[in-house]
Amino acid sequence: MALILKGAPVAAAMTEKMKTRSDALRARGIVPTLAILRVGARDDDLSYERGAMKRAEKAGIDVRNEVLPADADEGTFFGTLEKLNNDPGVHGILMFRPLPKHLDGEKARKMLAPAKDVDGCTDGSLAGVFTNTRLGFPPCTAEAAMEILHYYNIPVSGKKAAVIGRSLVIGRPVAMMLMHENATVTICHTRTPDVPAVTREADIVIAASGQMRSVGAEYLAAGQTVVDVGIGWSEELQKLCGDVRYEEAEELVAALTPVPGGVGAVTTAVLCRHVIEAAERSML
Amino acid sequence: MALILKGAPVAAAMTEKMKTRSDALRARGIVPTLAILRVGARDDDLSYERGAMKRAEKAGIDVRNEVLPADADEGTFFGTLEKLNNDPGVHGILMFRPLPKHLDGEKARKMLAPAKDVDGCTDGSLAGVFTNTRLGFPPCTAEAAMEILHYYNIPVSGKKAAVIGRSLVIGRPVAMMLMHENATVTICHTRTPDVPAVTREADIVIAASGQMRSVGAEYLAAGQTVVDVGIGWSEELQKLCGDVRYEEAEELVAALTPVPGGVGAVTTAVLCRHVIEAAERSML
Repeated sequence: MALILKGAPVAAAMTEKMKTRSDALRARGIVPTLAILRVGARDDDLSYERGAMKRAEKAGIDVRNEVLPADADEGTFFGTLEKLNNDPGVHGILMFRPLPKHLDGEKARKMLAPAKDVDGCTDGSLAGVFTNTRLGFPPCTAEAAMEILHYYNIPVSGKKAAVIGRSLVIGRPVAMMLMHENATVTICHTRTPDVPAVTREADIVIAASGQMRSVGAEYLAAGQTVVDVGIGWSEELQKLCGDVRYEEAEELVAALTPVPGGVGAVTTAVLCRHVIEAAERSML
Repeated sequence: MALILKGAPVAAAMTEKMKTRSDALRARGIVPTLAILRVGARDDDLSYERGAMKRAEKAGIDVRNEVLPADADEGTFFGTLEKLNNDPGVHGILMFRPLPKHLDGEKARKMLAPAKDVDGCTDGSLAGVFTNTRLGFPPCTAEAAMEILHYYNIPVSGKKAAVIGRSLVIGRPVAMMLMHENATVTICHTRTPDVPAVTREADIVIAASGQMRSVGAEYLAAGQTVVDVGIGWSEELQKLCGDVRYEEAEELVAALTPVPGGVGAVTTAVLCRHVIEAAERSML
C-alpha cells in the first residue's frame, strides 16, 4: 500500500512559517495584503476564494475582495485592475481567469503588475520559471506539487521524472522546476504515442493532463511517487476524482497524493507565501 | 553511412526567401537593419560578426557596426545601447556577450529592447519560447537546429527527442521548440545518471552540452537523427570538433549534422530572418 502524501500537513507547516514572516512584516508597519479580483460568481472561483481567504487568515494576510458583476464593462474591469496594480497597500493580486468573453483576458494578463503576480500567469513569471530566476512567481499548482515532494523528503535530484501534460499552469512549469532540481524530465502530452512506456520508467510521475481517471496501473510501477494534479467530479463514482485511478495506484506505487486533500490543499498556501514574499520584496 | 545534414543548403534556401522579404520592405522605404554592438575584439565575436555580415548582405539587410574599446566605460556602453534601442532605423540588435567584467551584463540584457532582441536573450524572448508565442525571438542556435530538421524533412511530431544540455541559449529552448512541434522530449544534463540510456531510445538527439567529443557510439542507435550543436578546437585532432564523435556516429545513425558546416552555418541565417521579421513587425 502506498504512503499517502496528504496536503494538509504540508500546508500547515508552510502556514506556521508564514505567520512568523507576516508578524515580522506587521511589526514593521506592513500588512501583507492579497487582492482577489473576481468577475461574476462561478462555483470554482468561489470555492477557491473561500480556501484562499481561510488560509490567508491563518497566515496573517489581509484579503481585499474586489467583486465585479459578470457583465462589468471594460472600463470598470481594467480600471479596477489598474487601481490594484498601483495601490502600494496591495502586494499580490489573484485575478480569476478565464474572464467573461467580453473582457480581453490576454490584455488583462499583460496588464497585471509582474511584481504582484502571485498566481504566476504573466510572461515575467513564466520567464522566471524557465530561466530559474525569481522574476514574478511560479504558478501555484506547480509549486504546490514541488512542496509536497520536499515535505515528504522524496528525492528529486538525479531521479527520472515524467510529466503528463504540457499546460502553462502546471505541466511545463513543473517540468522546469523538477529539472532545476536536477531531475531528468520527460514531458508527455496528447501527441506522445506511448505514455505508459515513459511513465513506467520514471521515479516520479506528475499526472497533470486534466483527463480524469486516465492514469491506471498500466502507467505505473512499484517504487514510484505519483503526484495527482487533476481534480473533477465523477458522475459515475459520485465523488471528486483526480487524473489517477487511485485504487489501482494505491496498490502498486510507493507514494501517492490523494484527491481531494493532496495538491489542491497546498495550492492556497503557496499563493499566500507568494503574497508574503511580494510584501517582503516591496521593502527592498 | 549517415546522411550528412549540411547547413549550407538550409541557409541558402532561407536567404533566398529573406531576399524577397527584404526587397518588399525596401520597396516600402524600410531598410532592414541589424546593429552589431561589440566591446573589444575577441576572436569568436569577430568570426561570428564576419559570418553575420556576409549573410546579411546576401539577405538584403544593412549592418551598422558599433564597436567600443574593451575598456569602454559604463556611460559609453549603456549610452550606445540606449541609442540603438531608440533608433527607429535599427530593427535588430546583436549584442556580443559576455561583456567585459566591468560592464553589468545582466543590466544590459534587461535594458535591450525586446522588440529588437533578434538574438533571443531577453526575458521576453525566453518567455515567448516557453509559452510558444512570438514575444521577441528564440535564441538563434536553437532555431537553427529546428530549421535543419525541417529542411531535411525529419519528422518531429510524435517522435522521441533527447536533448543533452539545459543551457538557456540552446538546451532548454530547443527542448521547448521540439515539444511545441509535438515531440516527446527528455532533457538530460550533468546530473542525469545514465545519459546514454536516454539518448539511445530517442529518434532525435540534440547534442548541446558543450563537452567536446563526449557523445560516442554508446549514446547512439541506428535510425536516429543527430544534431550536433557543439563546436570547439581539438588540440589532439588539430581540427574543429563538435560534441559528437563524428566518425563513430557516422557509421551508426541515419542522419547527422557535421561540425563545422552544420548548425553553425544556419545560425546567422536565423539571425538575419529575425531582423527581417523585426522590420516587418515595426510596420504593424
